Amino acid sequence: PAELKAKITSIAKSFKRLGQDDPRRVTHSFKVGFALSLVSLLYYARPLYDGFGVAGMWAVLTVVVVFEFTVGGTLSKCLNRGFATFLAGGLGLGADYFASLFGKKGEPIVLGILVFLLAAAATFIRFFPRMKARYDYGVLIFILTFSMVAVSGYRVDELVVLAHQRLSTIILGGATCMLISIFICPVWAGEDLHNAVASNLEKLATFLEGFGGVYFLSCRDEGSDVDSKDGNGKSFFQGYKSIMNSKNREESLVSLASLHSTWEPGHGRFRLRHPWKHYLKIGALARQCAYHIEVINACIGSHIHASEEFKGKIEGPCSRMSAECGRALKALATSMKTMTDPSSAKSNVENTKAAMKDLMFALKAASVENADFLAIAPAAAVGSVLVEIARCVEKISEAVH
Amino acid sequence: PAELKAKITSIAKSFKRLGQDDPRRVTHSFKVGFALSLVSLLYYARPLYDGFGVAGMWAVLTVVVVFEFTVGGTLSKCLNRGFATFLAGGLGLGADYFASLFGKKGEPIVLGILVFLLAAAATFIRFFPRMKARYDYGVLIFILTFSMVAVSGYRVDELVVLAHQRLSTIILGGATCMLISIFICPVWAGEDLHNAVASNLEKLATFLEGFGGVYFLSCRDEGSDVDSKDGNGKSFFQGYKSIMNSKNREESLVSLASLHSTWEPGHGRFRLRHPWKHYLKIGALARQCAYHIEVINACIGSHIHASEEFKGKIEGPCSRMSAECGRALKALATSMKTMTDPSSAKSNVENTKAAMKDLMFALKAASVENADFLAIAPAAAVGSVLVEIARCVEKISEAVH
Repeated sequence: PAELKAKITSIAKSFKRLGQDDPRRVTHSFKVGFALSLVSLLYYARPLYDGFGVAGMWAVLTVVVVFEFTVGGTLSKCLNRGFATFLAGGLGLGADYFASLFGKKGEPIVLGILVFLLAAAATFIRFFPRMKARYDYGVLIFILTFSMVAVSGYRVDELVVLAHQRLSTIILGGATCMLISIFICPVWAGEDLHNAVASNLEKLATFLEGFGGVYFLSCRDEGSDVDSKDGNGKSFFQGYKSIMNSKNREESLVSLASLHSTWEPGHGRFRLRHPWKHYLKIGALARQCAYHIEVINACIGSHIHASEEFKGKIEGPCSRMSAECGRALKALATSMKTMTDPSSAKSNVENTKAAMKDLMFALKAASVENADFLAIAPAAAVGSVLVEIARCVEKISEAVH
Repeated sequence: PAELKAKITSIAKSFKRLGQDDPRRVTHSFKVGFALSLVSLLYYARPLYDGFGVAGMWAVLTVVVVFEFTVGGTLSKCLNRGFATFLAGGLGLGADYFASLFGKKGEPIVLGILVFLLAAAATFIRFFPRMKARYDYGVLIFILTFSMVAVSGYRVDELVVLAHQRLSTIILGGATCMLISIFICPVWAGEDLHNAVASNLEKLATFLEGFGGVYFLSCRDEGSDVDSKDGNGKSFFQGYKSIMNSKNREESLVSLASLHSTWEPGHGRFRLRHPWKHYLKIGALARQCAYHIEVINACIGSHIHASEEFKGKIEGPCSRMSAECGRALKALATSMKTMTDPSSAKSNVENTKAAMKDLMFALKAASVENADFLAIAPAAAVGSVLVEIARCVEKISEAVH
């Protein structure tokens, strides 16, 4: 019993954490429950029931299948479902009429062939990447509705009435979902995308701001491995790991949101024709930055350690460069969030460029003394990659404008 | 009309290309059509129709929704749907009985509250990442079936008969899908995963084998930018771009396939408990390698060009290192494909290590002459990153065993 209690507590805790991480999840759950209860009224209220009949079940089905977390997702599924049902219903009726021309014996054969051909063709169309991204659900519903109408038409005589009932209940269910998702605590995919990209930049900034200190600190108390360091250093490296792990998730979020956000009407601070595609560009640049950081980290963890002397020489410009990059990114993230002009970021980018020049001078100066190349190579690599990061940051700063 | 004709030809061509890229797509489309026609027999054959009634429609619905491209995907959806329908149907009947205790007036209210609570709870559960990955479809069907059974129970008296009919038609539709997907030209997710990982390694190998030649060639005819080179050089760089672009797709394929392949029974060369998780590890290492290559490419495109003299000195060991890495990866990919022991890769890895040592000697030797550090830094960076790549390759070689 004690074990069971502990297990239940841990499950309850994970529930609570899930809700606290993003309270909109709880709201969303209640919204779905509310929409379902509302639609099932169709069944309970007798006058409505007499109007719609068993087809009211389709309203319930529509709500369950169509209600997505974001407004854009819900709208896209609703419209897909509506148009596909309408189109497939019409085609299905046509197929029924066409098959009936072949007499009692021929009808099932002709219908079977039609269903086979249309299902095969539509399934093949789903493999087109562009169709898959935007209309996958619509094509699925198309196959579904067409085969159901065509097949059941052989039995049910009042097919037009049935089709009309189905379509009207689907529209009813879809409209309920759309209204609830737009007007009750809406979750805009566009806003999610906006925040995800901004927080991506912030994470990169945190790493870059902390980087100089940790890298050059770690070589001062040489011998103790970077990974085994405690306190500040460790949490810093774990923060970096979280970028790498979350990158994948955020990437898919960005692509999904940018797709869904094209379905969303203008809202809040965003106009109808907000340049959503621009976010993909910034996201790609941020990812490029993350790749570079990954390599820098690999270089730090490398077993060839750079000479202390040389490191000391490039420490100043390197730390300054990475810190300025970090500050520039932070300023860009803030200006994205508040939607103001990132003027302070510009000066940071200028500072980065100055630091880059200093680094080159330091390298030139170091070449006068005859140091060991082997010892210099890793540090030089870190420097070179930092230069690339600085270039990335400059591009991001241009893209944000 | 000429324009229209050109458009139709181009569409037809893209269809053809889609089919040629992966002929299994065409087979899959026909399989879906076949399964649908087979299931619609339920409607046409009078004795079967009398047995199943309108519920036969659910068999059609099941086939359309459940049939996935891979065997693992189909099995996972079938089992999810079957269990969820069974469970939710039972709970729905229980809810109906419970609500009926409250009399004619109280019944709809109690049912409404139950639907609201269960739908909200189940929707919330869908946010758990682990549930989302494995049982998302099952939970969806659970909400759907529960609300439909609970709501319609208020009207339909012979609910048990209905539930029995629905479940049996769903099982029938699901069984049809499973049998067809397993026995007619099966597409195993596990095999896809296996091939994707192997071809990933091959792509990396192609880049690394060609890298030395292109990098050191490009600096010999200095002044002409790398990007503006034609013929061999250009196609080589485009090949590299395709790795970066496909990385994302392959990543999702790997995670999806490794999930689906756990549902698949043993087949072909794979035993039931094939270590699928191992592929994720190799895939992650391959991605690490791709990041490094990305950075090397950025360094090549950098505007600070390394001095010719220094480049000439490290050319030998660098090209040897990258070529050996490439050969090792190719051997590993081949041994994965043929499922043999990668003994030749081992010697390649040893050669890489030897080349790494040569590179260090070359660096040491170069330090005697007093060259310009600034000119050396980029080339040194390329060398360092190559060392990291070599280390990655070594890890991959260990993982493949």
